[in-house]
Amino acid sequence: MVRELIRVALGQQRADLVIKGGMLVNVYSGELLKDYWVAIKGERIAYVGPDGNHTIGDNTEVIELKEQVIAPGFIDGHMHLDCTLGTVEEFIRYAIPGGTTSAVVETTDIANILGYEGVISFLDIIKGHPMKFFALAPSLMPSLPTIEARPLISQEELEKIIACPDIVGLGETIWPFVTDEDPYVMDMLATTHKHNKELEGHSAGAKGNKLVAYVASGISSCHEPIKVNELLERLRLGIHVMIREGSIRRDLEALSQIKDLDIDYRRLILVSDGVDANDLLNLGYMEYIVQKAIDLGINPIKAIQMATLNVAEHFQLDKKIGGIAPGKEADIIILPDLRTIKPQLVISRGKLAAKEGHLLLSPKKVSYPPSALNSIRLPRHLEAQDFSIKSPVTTGEVKVRVIEVVSPVITQEAQELLPAINGTLPLIVERDILKLSVIERLDNTGRIFTGFIKGFGLKSGAFASSYSWESKSPLVVVGADEADMAWAINRIIELHGGLVICQNQKSLVELPLPISGYLSSLPLKEIVSKLEAVKETIRSMGSALANPFLTLQTLPGTIFPYLRINEWGLIDIKSKTLVNLIVS
Amino acid sequence: MVRELIRVALGQQRADLVIKGGMLVNVYSGELLKDYWVAIKGERIAYVGPDGNHTIGDNTEVIELKEQVIAPGFIDGHMHLDCTLGTVEEFIRYAIPGGTTSAVVETTDIANILGYEGVISFLDIIKGHPMKFFALAPSLMPSLPTIEARPLISQEELEKIIACPDIVGLGETIWPFVTDEDPYVMDMLATTHKHNKELEGHSAGAKGNKLVAYVASGISSCHEPIKVNELLERLRLGIHVMIREGSIRRDLEALSQIKDLDIDYRRLILVSDGVDANDLLNLGYMEYIVQKAIDLGINPIKAIQMATLNVAEHFQLDKKIGGIAPGKEADIIILPDLRTIKPQLVISRGKLAAKEGHLLLSPKKVSYPPSALNSIRLPRHLEAQDFSIKSPVTTGEVKVRVIEVVSPVITQEAQELLPAINGTLPLIVERDILKLSVIERLDNTGRIFTGFIKGFGLKSGAFASSYSWESKSPLVVVGADEADMAWAINRIIELHGGLVICQNQKSLVELPLPISGYLSSLPLKEIVSKLEAVKETIRSMGSALANPFLTLQTLPGTIFPYLRINEWGLIDIKSKTLVNLIVS
Repeated sequence: MVRELIRVALGQQRADLVIKGGMLVNVYSGELLKDYWVAIKGERIAYVGPDGNHTIGDNTEVIELKEQVIAPGFIDGHMHLDCTLGTVEEFIRYAIPGGTTSAVVETTDIANILGYEGVISFLDIIKGHPMKFFALAPSLMPSLPTIEARPLISQEELEKIIACPDIVGLGETIWPFVTDEDPYVMDMLATTHKHNKELEGHSAGAKGNKLVAYVASGISSCHEPIKVNELLERLRLGIHVMIREGSIRRDLEALSQIKDLDIDYRRLILVSDGVDANDLLNLGYMEYIVQKAIDLGINPIKAIQMATLNVAEHFQLDKKIGGIAPGKEADIIILPDLRTIKPQLVISRGKLAAKEGHLLLSPKKVSYPPSALNSIRLPRHLEAQDFSIKSPVTTGEVKVRVIEVVSPVITQEAQELLPAINGTLPLIVERDILKLSVIERLDNTGRIFTGFIKGFGLKSGAFASSYSWESKSPLVVVGADEADMAWAINRIIELHGGLVICQNQKSLVELPLPISGYLSSLPLKEIVSKLEAVKETIRSMGSALANPFLTLQTLPGTIFPYLRINEWGLIDIKSKTLVNLIVS
Repeated sequence: MVRELIRVALGQQRADLVIKGGMLVNVYSGELLKDYWVAIKGERIAYVGPDGNHTIGDNTEVIELKEQVIAPGFIDGHMHLDCTLGTVEEFIRYAIPGGTTSAVVETTDIANILGYEGVISFLDIIKGHPMKFFALAPSLMPSLPTIEARPLISQEELEKIIACPDIVGLGETIWPFVTDEDPYVMDMLATTHKHNKELEGHSAGAKGNKLVAYVASGISSCHEPIKVNELLERLRLGIHVMIREGSIRRDLEALSQIKDLDIDYRRLILVSDGVDANDLLNLGYMEYIVQKAIDLGINPIKAIQMATLNVAEHFQLDKKIGGIAPGKEADIIILPDLRTIKPQLVISRGKLAAKEGHLLLSPKKVSYPPSALNSIRLPRHLEAQDFSIKSPVTTGEVKVRVIEVVSPVITQEAQELLPAINGTLPLIVERDILKLSVIERLDNTGRIFTGFIKGFGLKSGAFASSYSWESKSPLVVVGADEADMAWAINRIIELHGGLVICQNQKSLVELPLPISGYLSSLPLKEIVSKLEAVKETIRSMGSALANPFLTLQTLPGTIFPYLRINEWGLIDIKSKTLVNLIVS
């Protein structure tokens, strides 16, 4: 292969594809160069320079440019593929036309559900597409019932995963586990360090000595700064700072204030941290982020470097990708001009992959392992009484802790007096005190815990999901009626995973998520319209929540404050302890 | 170790050494930051920030600064240790006080003489000093008798060497061997590429399509540009461009013109390519180069980055060295101000290593393998008649090719008519036509070839060396008298290597080089005065050469034009063929 590149450059052999005469964004020198040619042989670049006539033969496809701009394909340096709820094939269909040719993917969610074997299957699933994926080894997840580091895979398994060539590092490791010297985490860092791969960070909220201690461990990136001073504090500690602009958070506008500072940009990176189906279809992906950075006043060449070379350098991938140079993989986009990040043409792995927003190549057909397709494992179907809550007294009033929704992802503890009825505590729709249950779904235990929630606003029916954040993605259901809660969960079992809204034991909206209980096999467009239907239906059932699915999926999470729920009980995030439902 | 760093940063444990309140050159952000503290534990940095009081304990050494500047120790990204003719210990004694704490060393010269085992011994020799060395695996050498790629080690041996943690890449590979697809070279590149290590380049004279073809092979650096347009051409192809300022060449002044260009500096690196003993003692090392860059108008922070972070990033060493950040190795210099690169203090591996130019730590005592100490292997001593040159005719005139010295390292072919005397061709001192011999000295063959040289200017005696460039460092001797030539070579055999000037079979100057025939065990100061004596003595013997030893050592080389000599005959560099001494 290298020999072919040499021969094409020397004019001894012909190129497959030649781009003739555009303005080249040279990410290495930081220049925009006029009248440049790029010649491609196979999947790689053979020639870059002022005259590529000698590389053209009878079978060479030639793309003639005028004033258009030639730039490297974008690389998303931090993302979660499951954010769209769709398959990797569907993701690629929308990512590539926008000019993103590579992404670095977290696998913690996969290890969470499917363990080591799941990660190994995933490495196979993401391979061989017209878009390139690199992956991070699974990091730790907070354990249940309380929040402690829990190994998802053994050290021996990590050792095997980290050595894989497509694995570029260890996934984001939340900072307190490091500064607290969790022994499992310390071993994970040492294993990764030994293989000279990256330790991806997650230092939200850390500052001063704690941030320094975290970085001293060898952590080499963070995508969590939301203010310029947080960005600078991290950059000055030598780590690669990722500016996040995606569906989870949008930090670019605030952080774009760096444009007025005289600093070195090489360790600044633009990332999505994951985009949902709606954003991917309607806003776009990395091209949207780069465009926004330029619109916010960041120098266009620097903005492009932040989504290409800077990312590649961070992950030691710059020998392969991140720039347009001889020997590099031919991942190239053609833009109308330097300030319009709307690729007219996308070349990926040396092939024309998209033109004017339309995909020209098909992703590989992916098949999922049986364990992924059978991930809702409960011992039996549920009934209304499975959701009853025992009262400590037969009659009279009882004070209980209630999860109160205060923003889409933030909750707080409320305390409410509820009447005991025949030794149980009821939900009270009129006071917006609904029931909320979390059900373990991987280990066939059927372990369930039911509490109360306020602020969700349903007047009837139930809303259930097998997609939830953190922990082992348990089933979560909120309801104004116990029979509907049982019905919704039972329907999810039948669908092998999904999102279900029901009323009077009749389905109103269903989005099947049969892959691991959190991915749909539907086209992204249908996922978007299903999610739109979810939003409207929940609203029609009385809820005023802006994004009820996001709120539902994050209720069992452990990364957002303050009162959360899992299958073991209510959890106080600040103290990392289980707290009683009944206020003693 | 990581745990200790975390604890020091958090104030749970105390630092060993603390720098209090200087101006920090932050190579990551490109800023000069006021009132910064650095705390060191063991060999590494535990804390960097605005207040390190919490890291100070009873046993902490504290260095209090006022307006001084804290910068990372310098890294020489391309050098040949043998340039000083001294030992590594002696090199360190002068490198460290100037602020150079790491260097990347070529090993081709070692493999050349001592093969695979020599390189393995060398990796041990350079380990464990107060200064860090990283090495490059031996690349190819032009083979004799004609100039073709010659494997110094087998592919299996390269595979083992390249996997060593202290090996950061493959040494400089001369470009035509790559563009000509020499099969051995292609295999070396592939082996290195497989291990994701750097392919160091040497593209002197390459441009246009040939340079592109060379870079397409995966070559990732070049230290040969001598003009700004050559630098830019390389930088735009994505390779790391090394600006050389050392005893071999001085390119910084010409290349400093980049200061007026708006380009990205991250892939620009300052290197020495080796310094000789005189320059090391009298000019300095990397601190001299950085100072000169600043004096020539390059931004001081950029100049420091070019000798620290940029180098570390190129070699994927930036997790360890190249900047002052938590977790990095504590290689730090204290400068009086940002524009005065004269370290008041040097910290290396966490220890105070030098103060005001004085070394505080001793290098490790090094021992050399027996094969290195017995590298002058000839079957017997030589006699005057070993240097006689046969004539094709018994009497009359014969036209011969003569190596004519036109500059210290450039020669050309001259043709001269010589009288045949008793079937031999004599040297003629009056016409400055001297004899020049090259003698194989490693394989005990005693193979010898004698030709003529013009322009050396000796009126009497002989000058011999076991240190010579390229090939297998054969013995080389130039003489105005055959008996003196034999005497000088025999003296080198007795010394196990060296530099010898003799007259009437009496030694005038001797510099023993008993280590591999090219290193002295003397202090560098003595080497400098010996070399000075060589220069003066040769001058007193009639030569007008500016640097007679450099001229002598490069005569058997194959990298400089045009007519050269080796033990097989005269070699025409342009055509890469042996040419006859006698012009037919």
